[in-house]
Order: sequence, then structure tokens, then C-alpha cells
Amino acid sequence: MNSGELVDLGQQLRVDSVRAAAAAGSGHPTSSMSAADLMAVLLANHLHYDFERPAHPCNDRLILSKGHASPLLYAAYKAAGAIDDEELLTFRELGSRLEGHPTPRRLPWVETATGSLGQGLPVGVGVALAGKRLDRAGDYRVWVLCGDSELAEGSVWEAAEHAAYEHLDNLTAVVDVNRLGQRGPTRHGHDLDAYARRFQAFGWHTVEVDGHDVDAVDRAYGEALSTRGQPTAILARTLKGRGVAAVEDREGLHGKPLPDADEAVAELGGPRDLRVEVHEPPATRMLHAVRTGPVELPRWDLGEEVATRDAYGKALAALGGGRGDVVALDGEVSDSTRAEFFAKEHPERFFECYIAEQQLVAAAVGLAARGWVPYASSFAAFLTRAHDFVRMAAVSGAGINVVGSHAGVAIGQDGPSQMGLEDLAMFRAVHGSTVLYPCDANQTAHLVGAMAGLDGVRYLRTSRGKSAVIYPPGEEFPVGGSKVLRSSADDRLTLVAAGVTVPEALAAADALDERGIQVRVIDLYSVKPVDRATLRQAAEDTGCLLTVEDHHEEGGLGDAVLDAFVDGRPVPRLARLAVRTMPGSASPAEQLRAAGIDAESIAASVELLVEQAVVR
Amino acid sequence: MNSGELVDLGQQLRVDSVRAAAAAGSGHPTSSMSAADLMAVLLANHLHYDFERPAHPCNDRLILSKGHASPLLYAAYKAAGAIDDEELLTFRELGSRLEGHPTPRRLPWVETATGSLGQGLPVGVGVALAGKRLDRAGDYRVWVLCGDSELAEGSVWEAAEHAAYEHLDNLTAVVDVNRLGQRGPTRHGHDLDAYARRFQAFGWHTVEVDGHDVDAVDRAYGEALSTRGQPTAILARTLKGRGVAAVEDREGLHGKPLPDADEAVAELGGPRDLRVEVHEPPATRMLHAVRTGPVELPRWDLGEEVATRDAYGKALAALGGGRGDVVALDGEVSDSTRAEFFAKEHPERFFECYIAEQQLVAAAVGLAARGWVPYASSFAAFLTRAHDFVRMAAVSGAGINVVGSHAGVAIGQDGPSQMGLEDLAMFRAVHGSTVLYPCDANQTAHLVGAMAGLDGVRYLRTSRGKSAVIYPPGEEFPVGGSKVLRSSADDRLTLVAAGVTVPEALAAADALDERGIQVRVIDLYSVKPVDRATLRQAAEDTGCLLTVEDHHEEGGLGDAVLDAFVDGRPVPRLARLAVRTMPGSASPAEQLRAAGIDAESIAASVELLVEQAVVR
Repeated sequence: MNSGELVDLGQQLRVDSVRAAAAAGSGHPTSSMSAADLMAVLLANHLHYDFERPAHPCNDRLILSKGHASPLLYAAYKAAGAIDDEELLTFRELGSRLEGHPTPRRLPWVETATGSLGQGLPVGVGVALAGKRLDRAGDYRVWVLCGDSELAEGSVWEAAEHAAYEHLDNLTAVVDVNRLGQRGPTRHGHDLDAYARRFQAFGWHTVEVDGHDVDAVDRAYGEALSTRGQPTAILARTLKGRGVAAVEDREGLHGKPLPDADEAVAELGGPRDLRVEVHEPPATRMLHAVRTGPVELPRWDLGEEVATRDAYGKALAALGGGRGDVVALDGEVSDSTRAEFFAKEHPERFFECYIAEQQLVAAAVGLAARGWVPYASSFAAFLTRAHDFVRMAAVSGAGINVVGSHAGVAIGQDGPSQMGLEDLAMFRAVHGSTVLYPCDANQTAHLVGAMAGLDGVRYLRTSRGKSAVIYPPGEEFPVGGSKVLRSSADDRLTLVAAGVTVPEALAAADALDERGIQVRVIDLYSVKPVDRATLRQAAEDTGCLLTVEDHHEEGGLGDAVLDAFVDGRPVPRLARLAVRTMPGSASPAEQLRAAGIDAESIAASVELLVEQAVVR
Repeated sequence: MNSGELVDLGQQLRVDSVRAAAAAGSGHPTSSMSAADLMAVLLANHLHYDFERPAHPCNDRLILSKGHASPLLYAAYKAAGAIDDEELLTFRELGSRLEGHPTPRRLPWVETATGSLGQGLPVGVGVALAGKRLDRAGDYRVWVLCGDSELAEGSVWEAAEHAAYEHLDNLTAVVDVNRLGQRGPTRHGHDLDAYARRFQAFGWHTVEVDGHDVDAVDRAYGEALSTRGQPTAILARTLKGRGVAAVEDREGLHGKPLPDADEAVAELGGPRDLRVEVHEPPATRMLHAVRTGPVELPRWDLGEEVATRDAYGKALAALGGGRGDVVALDGEVSDSTRAEFFAKEHPERFFECYIAEQQLVAAAVGLAARGWVPYASSFAAFLTRAHDFVRMAAVSGAGINVVGSHAGVAIGQDGPSQMGLEDLAMFRAVHGSTVLYPCDANQTAHLVGAMAGLDGVRYLRTSRGKSAVIYPPGEEFPVGGSKVLRSSADDRLTLVAAGVTVPEALAAADALDERGIQVRVIDLYSVKPVDRATLRQAAEDTGCLLTVEDHHEEGGLGDAVLDAFVDGRPVPRLARLAVRTMPGSASPAEQLRAAGIDAESIAASVELLVEQAVVR
């Protein structure tokens, strides 16, 4: 498009943003208006995208990091012919695809859900990594439209660091510097240099531009396209609410429809119906071939002493051998999580994310958006850093595997800062998630393989120390299942354990047996979903369930068991052992003892419960 | 100390680090050895600290952000005479104050718990803010010893931005650039310029130095001390494991005791017992006076329509009027959280943290470390960004108030990215936390006041929309309590609600009453701790509890109720209503309906449960 048409298109995007928000009675038209010219020039002259084939491997990828400017995105979809005017005006209605913040669950052209600021660029890095390092067929660019306010998020600088380090010249960040956040002015106002200095220091090429000068913006995109070896940040000076005097560059108008939409539309030159012929993506040069073959998961013999983190690393390496779509990422602790086993065998599919857990999970989300099956690992404790990214991955409906090692007090001397004691709660509360916590090596290997085929966020919790292999190689462990490890007609109570507490529960059961008390033992390796039927049966048979977990008492195994009993039917007696104090340093055995989740403590608790209960 | 003595002191710190780790059989001596000279010069020549009076208001504040180098810190304590050699060798033992990673719960000289990387600098910013903006009496400096690996964490750049913007020239970051992370080399190796460019771009003064040249290090500290108007980053080139050939600058030796400790100690010149006379802090020029007076919390009349977020803002402003030690922080959404009410009345005690939730919580932790009572607010959804900081605040034993607004699907059109649906799970799982969720304005005001007096992490969940005031002004709401809002001898079930589901539960109870079904209604505003006695009584009286919550079904109110019933005694029948699907955009009423937590859905569920149950 020529300059005049681009100006017109920008005005159309503004008009449609204003109309959509007016129809909804809410939304962020002023944040859309500042970026309208940036979007117009991108859409008309630089984006390569086939809206009828969103899965086309050579499509560019457009991420609206400032997700609240969704009216602008939807206005662009309309201009591109992807949606019609009628649908545009369903913005924010119940059932509409046009949600307040865009999500790929609803719209095929959205790469990732945004709305939590500072996430678009890190996910964009993941998408660009796929394009640069994995998708040989694709010659796509990743365009991320950011706000200026969100540059205060540390995750943006994790992304800046990662992108420059990986020379992602297929990535362009377009920053809509409209100087106004939600509450008021940003730290740096219209000081484009302030942002440019930061991006340059991290290794980016930068272009400063008047974001309402369509010719200058057009040249800036061209400069980004011709820059080699580094990503480009286009820093565009804009005005929030541009084009309507009542709101332009004014504070206090964030996230509000315009006071008089009809007048605003008139001031913007009235409705238009320009239609953009978006450039086609280049023809696929060759189909992307992913190698597949039989997966031979590792097997361990009964009684071997193996840490589940070791089993994870070996199983993942084996999975990667059979499945060419499996990739691994780690947060600079692959020697601890054992992701290093995968890295050694499949270096081309391993992504070192350094100590930046937000970028770690974001890269996984970006890779998943391009069809890869990512496994992202760090210490369970440090995955809390990425909680918001995991939450948003669920909003996206992204299929990612997250693996947390060094779970619980069982790690020993390193102390509480390194202990994952909140991770089960965090991952259980994520919508649509799966939470797995194996206790032995064969079980781990099976679950690592099973995770790949699930939907949503899949979490696997692994342990630092070695434990005996208790399941034979080849045993099946369905997700949503459990294993009954001890059972008799005389069971007076059921111990429900997972991970490191399984051997403790078994030892307690043996000790109790010697004292004439039979107890059932369930290995609840699938923490979410839980095996309701088996828990119900145990409740009916034994009347009392005692959960034992190496996790704080809230949100973990104990709470998970409740899921089997919230259907209004009778509930067994319940008791729980969990980590109730703040641990310090001590040996693993001392830690389990101090937390009251070792075999002796379990046995003592059982005896107390049996005494207290009606004699059976 | 002169150069020769400093060199000797550095060697002593190395020797003691090696000895401590050898005694423990674990720990991070090589990471301690790289920073030993940096610590020696700081301790001997620049730190002002009275180890016998750690609470002295003019003490400098030393934060070991690379917390795994705890042997170095403890060796420094020994050199300063704060601990003896015997205690040094208890490192990492059960019950020792010298944990694997330092925590203020155990040691009075530790400002904040570290061990999760990237946290020391953000917390240091909070401490420095107190010194700069609040502690008129204190003329202290904040020294933060960072690793180079941890500069990959986005939180470090949130801190860099905040510190420069606030001109924190009382803050010095000392970066031990030993080029080796846990797994291997860092991104930038010994390229000090790479780090300097980044800090400079964010507005810091930088000094590059050979970290083993004690004279150069001494001059660097001097330069930091004389720099005005901006914080200083000292970038020190060091070698991991410095001084012992077997480990110096070698990969694969992170977090491991030296292979031969005796030989290493000999190579380092043998044990020494240098004692450092650390400079005294300057005399307190005037005592810090905190204004206190009567707190007149706002009051609302029954039936008024008020959002609990509004009540929060007004109550906090009032609390700040009476208590001069109360400070508020917000993540650039104070117009939404209503922290703006406090900001307007007490601008000198309000801290705008922009969109950087990690720094938001870290600043609160830093302010709390200096005796202030912080209230940090953002959207509940975005507090997930700060999960790791909240977790570590608990490890510190920090007393902070965190307030999450816009909880649940009840926010309406903005959609799931803005909905706090995991926050109760996240805050419940934090050790020693308190979790409060008020349903009306008077209750909110009371709880805002009560929070100030609690220990640990206190979380308050507020709502966006208005709701009717149902409690009279002046009513008491003890933490750990609840309110029985409907009760009769004929109750056939108990509804347990909190926040926005309380009015829904009441409406359901009224509707059911008309259909001849009496139900009890409990407002469980104290989600943690829960009111076990009242729940138990309701269980005994009614036999069935139905929880109703605007939160995902895991880890929230439903799970919290379980806490009253895990003591092995009989459990009532249980059922729960919660948000089981991924919401989209819709009006608040439509959202509650779609989630099945509105009055009609509740009433329908009760009827079903009553039908299913044995007739009472």
C-alpha cells in the first residue's frame, strides 16, 4: 500500500477499535489507537500470512504482547478479511471468539494468549527459536507488538538476552511507546533513547521512529527485515488515543471505551471498509520432516537404586531418539535435572535457557505453538518463578511438559530455598493440568513417555536421591491411575503416598504388620487426575485414609485425595502427614524424620489413628 | 587493613569456606573462593556494621544474593568475631544456624533469605528505598554480592531499573564474575563490558575490576561510595575456586566440596585466625520517629454497595493515618487495586513499582526487613509472577501483606488472563501464611487492620465489583474465624462460601427456604487458618458441606475446608462448586452462571444433594 492508503488503513483500524469497544461497553480503544499505524503498515506491507491456512509453516507469526489492545488485532483481522464486521461487534460477548484478550483456544491466528504483560516477547523468542533452529521448512518472521509499560517486566529482559544471544534476526519487537500506562505516565515517557540503550546493551539492533509516520514506519520494518545476526527492536513514538482530541495523549482513559464513540468515529473520518491483501507466505521449500521411530524407554531391574531425576533424563533422551518432535529446555541446571542426558544425545533439539525460568517456560510455549513437544526442566522450587507463564500457558491451551526436580525436604542439606514444597499446589491449580509424581525409575520412564500424548500443562515431579526400583520393567502406569502396593482383607487403614513417601509408607506397613496392624498402601503417582475409584474402594474397605507427602500440607497430595470424595457421598475418616514446619539444613533422612513423614512417624501415626478409631 | 592483610584475610575466608564445606560434606566452596577477596576488602575496609547490635539503624546491610556461597558469608562472620570456629564447622548440620543458604530466621545478621538466584538485588532495592526515602535516622549503605549467572534472571533487571530510577546511590551491587554457572560457562564468560553495558543502559554507574586485586577492589568500593545520584555495579573478574589449582576456573565442580580439603587448605597457606575490627556504624543522628495514633477505619452502612477493593484502599489509607510504619506498594495498577487512596494521602510512604511484580514483592520484603509494615498490591492473577519471591519471603520469615484484586471470574469481560483463579492455592501453600477473602466492605476494613499485626505472609483477596454491605460497622472478624449467616435446627446442609460467593449463597439459601429446604450458610472469610470448630459443628449438625468458590477447584476454599477434617475423626459428606472450565469474556453475572457458582446453580446443587442423601 502507498502512504495515503496506509494512513487510511490506520484510521480504519482506529474506527473499528472504537466501534468494537463501544459495542462491548469495555475494552482498550486508546491503547489500540496508538498502535494502529504500526499495525496498518505491518499488515499491508510486511506481514506474510495466509489467514485461510493459519497452520502454513511459512506464515509469519504475529504476537500481540500488549494483549489488551485486542480491538486493534480484531480490527486488523477484519481488514484482512478473516472476520466480518458483525463478528467484530461481538467483542467481549459471552461465547464470542473475540475475547477481552486474545487466545489461541478461540482464534486460529493467535499464537499465544496474552493479557499478562511481558509474556509476548518471551514466547516470541520460543517461536523464533523454532524458526531458526528447528523449522527448516519455514522462513517466517516473528513480529511482537509490545507496549512500553510492559518493558518494566523482567521477563522482557530475559527474552532480550536470549534473543540476542541466539542471534534471532527473524524476531522483531515493535514497541508502541505511547508513554502512558494504566495508572499514569511510564518511567521513561517518550524517551525512545532510554529504551534503545537498553535493547542495544542486550545486543539488539534498534530503530527509533515516529509511530504515526507511515513512511518512517515502513522504512523501519524494512530495516528490521534486512538486519542480520541480531533481533531488531522498533521503538515507535506514539500517542495513546491518537486521532481523537478528547482522549489523545490524556491520562485516566486506560481501558475505557471512548466517551462519545459516534463523534470519535466521525473525527477519525468515519467508517471505512478497506480490505488488505496480506502478502502470501513463501512457498514451502521442503516439508518439515520429523523423524519418528520406535521409542525404547530405558528399563531398570527390581531393586536397583536409581534417582527418578536420572530416570527422567534417560527416558527423555530415549523418547527423543524415537520422536523427532520432542525438544528439551533447561534453566542452567541440566546436570541436576538430568536433562543433560537429552542434551548430549540430541544437542540440536536442546535449548539452554540459563537461569531465567520465565523464559524457560515461555520458550516451551512458543515451541509448542509451532508443533513441538517441549520438556522444560528446573528445580521444582524455581518453577514458582514461572507460575504466571504456566497459568497463561493454560489459557493458551498450550501442550507443554514441565519437570521439577529436587522436590521436597528429601533433598537434604541445601535447605528450604531449594526445596520444592509448593509445586504440587501450583500445578494442580492450573486449569486442565496433569500432575505426576513417580516413586521409581520404571514408573518415571513410563510417565515421561505418556506425558507427550496429553493435552494442556503436564507436570512431572522428580526426586534428587536414589530409591529402589519397585516396579518391574514394562509395567503400565496409566495417567489417572494408582497402584495398590499392599492390600489385605484385614486392612484397618489406607496409606496414600507418592514419590519419596512410597518407600517410607511401605516400610511403615511392614513394621505395622509385625505389630499386627494391616494397612493398605496406595502409590498415588497420578496426583491429578486422581484415581477416584481406587481411593473410594480403599475408603469403603478400610474406613480411614492417611496421606503422606513431602510437600506443604496445602494443595498437595492430601488435598488431591479429597477430589475423590466431594461428590456428596459418605467420606472416610481422613488424616494427613505433610511438611508443617520450615525446614533447615539436615541430611535427607533427618529431614523426613523432622517433617514427620518417614516410616517411623507414619507407623506411629497409624497406631494412634487405629487406637482412636472404633475397633474394627 | 593494608594490602597484605587483605590478601591474607581473603585466603582465610577461602580456607574457612573449604573447611566448612568439608565438614558438611556438601556446599559451594568454589563459589565462595571466587568472591573471597571481594568479601575481605568489603568487610575490613568499607562495611559499617555492629555485629552485636544487628538492629542498629545505621548498620550497613549486606545481602549475599548468591546465597549458595554461604560458606564465605559464615567465614566472614567468623573473621568478624560474630561466630566461632566450632560453630563454623556445624555448617549444614541439623539444628545449626548455618544453613546451606543463609536465612534471617536463624541468623540476626542476614537481611533476607537467599538461595533462589536473582532475589538479593530486588530485596536490596527495597532496603535501599527504606534508607533513602524513609529511614531518616539511618545513613546506611546496602551491599549486594551477586553472582554472574543470576544476572540472567529478569528480576535483576527489574531491580536495576527501579534502583536507577529512584537514584539509589546507597546501593552497590558487587558482581562476582567467575564465568562459571552450575552446569558450565555463563553466556558472557569474563566479558565484564557485556555486563557493564547493561547496567549502564539502565542508569547505573559501573566499575570493572580484577576481583582478586585487593587494591583495585578497595578503590572500586571507594568509587561506589563517592558516586552520587545513581547506584553502582562493581563488575569483578574472578576465578571460581581461586587459589586451589585442582579446582580453579574448572567446570564440573559447582556445589561440591574440594576433592582434598587438607591439601587445599595447605595450598591456601594453611588456617589463619585473622580477626577483623569491622567499622562501627555512624552514631544515630536522631531516632527514627514513626508517627502513631488512633486508627479510625472507615465504616459503611448496611446495604451500601461497595467493592471490597474500594474498602481495601480506604482502610489502608486510614490505617496509614494512624500508623506511621505502614507503607504501600503497587504494580502500576493502583487505580484498580485502589492503593491510590493511600498514595494520595501518604505519598511519602507509597512506592510505585510499575509493572514488575517480582520487584513489587521484593521491595516489600526489603522494607519489612527494615521494620516497615508493607502492603503490596496488584491484580491477584499477576501476583503469580511473584510466587518465588513470596515463597522466599516465607523462608525469610518476612512479615508482608500482599493484596490481590480482581479475583475470580466475577471480573467479567476482561477474560481469564486477568482473573485470579489460582491465587488462593498459591498463598495457602506458603508456609506460615494467612489467607483472607472478605465479602463486604466492613469486613475488608477490619481485616486490613488485623493483617498488620500478624506474622509471616498475609494475603488479602479483593473483588472488582460492588457488593452489598452485610455486616454492621464495628463487627469483629477474628483471623481464623468465620461467620454463620444462616442457621436453624432444621439445616440439612451447610453452604461454605467466601467473597463473591457469599451473596450468592445467601440468595440460594433464601430460595431454598421458600422450597422448604433449610441450609446453613458460613462465610469463611479466613481461608487460612480455617475455623475448624465452626466447620465441625456444621458438619455434626447438618451432615453435609457444600463449598462454593470463585477459584479453580484445586487448592482453594474447598481444599481449605478439608483442613478441619483431617484429624482422623468422622468426616461429613462433602461437595464443591468451583470454576471447572476455562472462562472466556462475559458479564460478571454470566461468568458466575457459566462457572456454576451463582445462586441458582448453588440451589440446584443443594436440591440434588438433599435428594441423594439419606432423608434426615
